[in-house]
Amino acid sequence: MKIKTDIAHFSSPLYLESGRILEPYDIAYETYGELNDDKSNVVLVCHALSGSHHAAGIYEGEKKAGWWDDLIGDGKALDTSKYFVICTNVVGSCFGSTGPMSNSYPSLAPYRLKFPVVTIKDMVRAQVHLLSGLGIYKLKAIIGGSMGGMQALQFGVDYPNLAKHIISMASTYETRPWTIAFNKVAVEAIRTDPRFEGGYYAKDAFSEDGLAGLAIGRIAGHISFLSPKSMDRKFDRNYVNTDGLFELFGRYEVERYMEYNTTNFSKIFDPLSYLYIVKAINTFSLERGYDSLDDAILRIKSKVHLFSFSSDYLFFPEEMEFIYNVMSKNSQEVTYKEIQSDYGHDAFLVEVDKFEDDIKSILGESDDK
Amino acid sequence: MKIKTDIAHFSSPLYLESGRILEPYDIAYETYGELNDDKSNVVLVCHALSGSHHAAGIYEGEKKAGWWDDLIGDGKALDTSKYFVICTNVVGSCFGSTGPMSNSYPSLAPYRLKFPVVTIKDMVRAQVHLLSGLGIYKLKAIIGGSMGGMQALQFGVDYPNLAKHIISMASTYETRPWTIAFNKVAVEAIRTDPRFEGGYYAKDAFSEDGLAGLAIGRIAGHISFLSPKSMDRKFDRNYVNTDGLFELFGRYEVERYMEYNTTNFSKIFDPLSYLYIVKAINTFSLERGYDSLDDAILRIKSKVHLFSFSSDYLFFPEEMEFIYNVMSKNSQEVTYKEIQSDYGHDAFLVEVDKFEDDIKSILGESDDK
Repeated sequence: MKIKTDIAHFSSPLYLESGRILEPYDIAYETYGELNDDKSNVVLVCHALSGSHHAAGIYEGEKKAGWWDDLIGDGKALDTSKYFVICTNVVGSCFGSTGPMSNSYPSLAPYRLKFPVVTIKDMVRAQVHLLSGLGIYKLKAIIGGSMGGMQALQFGVDYPNLAKHIISMASTYETRPWTIAFNKVAVEAIRTDPRFEGGYYAKDAFSEDGLAGLAIGRIAGHISFLSPKSMDRKFDRNYVNTDGLFELFGRYEVERYMEYNTTNFSKIFDPLSYLYIVKAINTFSLERGYDSLDDAILRIKSKVHLFSFSSDYLFFPEEMEFIYNVMSKNSQEVTYKEIQSDYGHDAFLVEVDKFEDDIKSILGESDDK
Repeated sequence: MKIKTDIAHFSSPLYLESGRILEPYDIAYETYGELNDDKSNVVLVCHALSGSHHAAGIYEGEKKAGWWDDLIGDGKALDTSKYFVICTNVVGSCFGSTGPMSNSYPSLAPYRLKFPVVTIKDMVRAQVHLLSGLGIYKLKAIIGGSMGGMQALQFGVDYPNLAKHIISMASTYETRPWTIAFNKVAVEAIRTDPRFEGGYYAKDAFSEDGLAGLAIGRIAGHISFLSPKSMDRKFDRNYVNTDGLFELFGRYEVERYMEYNTTNFSKIFDPLSYLYIVKAINTFSLERGYDSLDDAILRIKSKVHLFSFSSDYLFFPEEMEFIYNVMSKNSQEVTYKEIQSDYGHDAFLVEVDKFEDDIKSILGESDDK
């Protein structure tokens, strides 16, 4: 599999939904496989809250592969011997695309809290610009889970002629208060952490000792990514050490998991980016900008494929089913599958074997046409 | 309804499950109604994590009634014209019973982190001592929800001859990792808050400006007390102010609710007490101290009445059903009812109308005997 990582620089403005502009801006992206001559083999992959453009393959010197490596590669569902797969880092993130800690122009100081609020619509628009820059105006498919699934749907609504297939997993048509409440833990934990300094922390402040507030917010995140059953299976009531029972801070396995994962995360993810991306998730609604939700969804011309996971406690199967029902009623092309899983929201990342054949056949169907 | 609030002082030691002792110790309690001559009309009410012995009635100068005022009073399900209702503040709490900020003897300095870990078993034992002190050795019923429901069940296991009826709502036989994970948010948020000072904060440090860490932990708590549907109904996607959409910290109604409730809570609840009570919840397991869970449950001689709520996202109906199945198999006296509700875990507090008749008939049945 041929992997290429790059950053595209745009000197033209990105017009944001808020009315503000981002100018100039960068989009970091990664591609897998090769673009064919008629540019008809492009699949766009959209990442979730904590993801990046590094969706597959292993960087030299690293142990961990990209976040959807099970799905993307030669012979895999997103077969890089056939397809040219692109994944971009969303605007507002901290892995190379322009975000709140990027230097603003012309001051060359980081934006910090002056960075404009970006939305899922804005993330999508930025990706359209990147695609145009690469001379790509048609996509075989757009696929993503969670916030990536929001983007996939938003592409379908805002750019109806762009993609043949839209594949949205573990996502929703608009973010409901349940999810906003989970995100609120992170917002408050980051905002009130003294080391956050109201957003005016030093650029490398957290590389060795991550921001506690971000780690705490991320615990709430991890709860929402898992499910009661997956936690039962993973941790049961096991203690890290047998003395833990009568020690106030004695830890259960589930607590160690939360500490370990969230502390590490807080060293690599920028807290301002986290706030901005969480804001984009909270404000996500396909309806906004259109007369009604139905009206927005009615714009979609792509064939839409919706996947939910039975134990998803963040975006519930009913939410995906709702989209299916609207599109069916409208006689739009749509399929919906609820995958039985105990892995919660995370299933779209960890149980690829449960849907890879579906993805293969969706893309294969389109190959024939 | 006659209300009496008091604090009982014990100079004899409370032997704790950890092997440590608490000596001396206080138990704050409140009673409603009057004890009859043969002391046969006593109902013990057990409170949850954030509760206190103030379960019913309104204190002079206050607006808010006790936490189960809908259930307790003259003519109500726990009819104080018939029954003598007692509610005690659990050991480890901060409303009058001995807890981590109480003065230890003989130093007369607060225990703080030297306070011993207390368990649900310990809370129950302390209440048995209080009852003995009042000359009460038989109870008509013990009733509680959430952590109160844990206590009710633990009473049944540890003191099989004490109560005719055990009524446990929205609770479990042992705390599962899902709930421990929610509690972990509070543990980390409190522990890492610099104003917590490793537990060495000034006694009145948070009365005006509550500990942010406790408020943040409490957001996770409130999520687990509600349900996706109750949040949909209460908040939808409404904004507090219309400018909120494109302001990074612009708030949704659900966010305001979380801020308001948790900030207020952090001014009245002691963070060390929160840590200790959360620890008691995390370590709850009816099995501990017995050969097996079955063996523990088999000890129960009271008639057990289990209530769960269909939308409870903290302690799931399956957990109550599990107890029912074990007891049924053992041919023990047990009833189980899953109440249909959208209110989540909180239903045991806010939808009293859905089970008050059941409680009445449980107690009435016993009146006839």
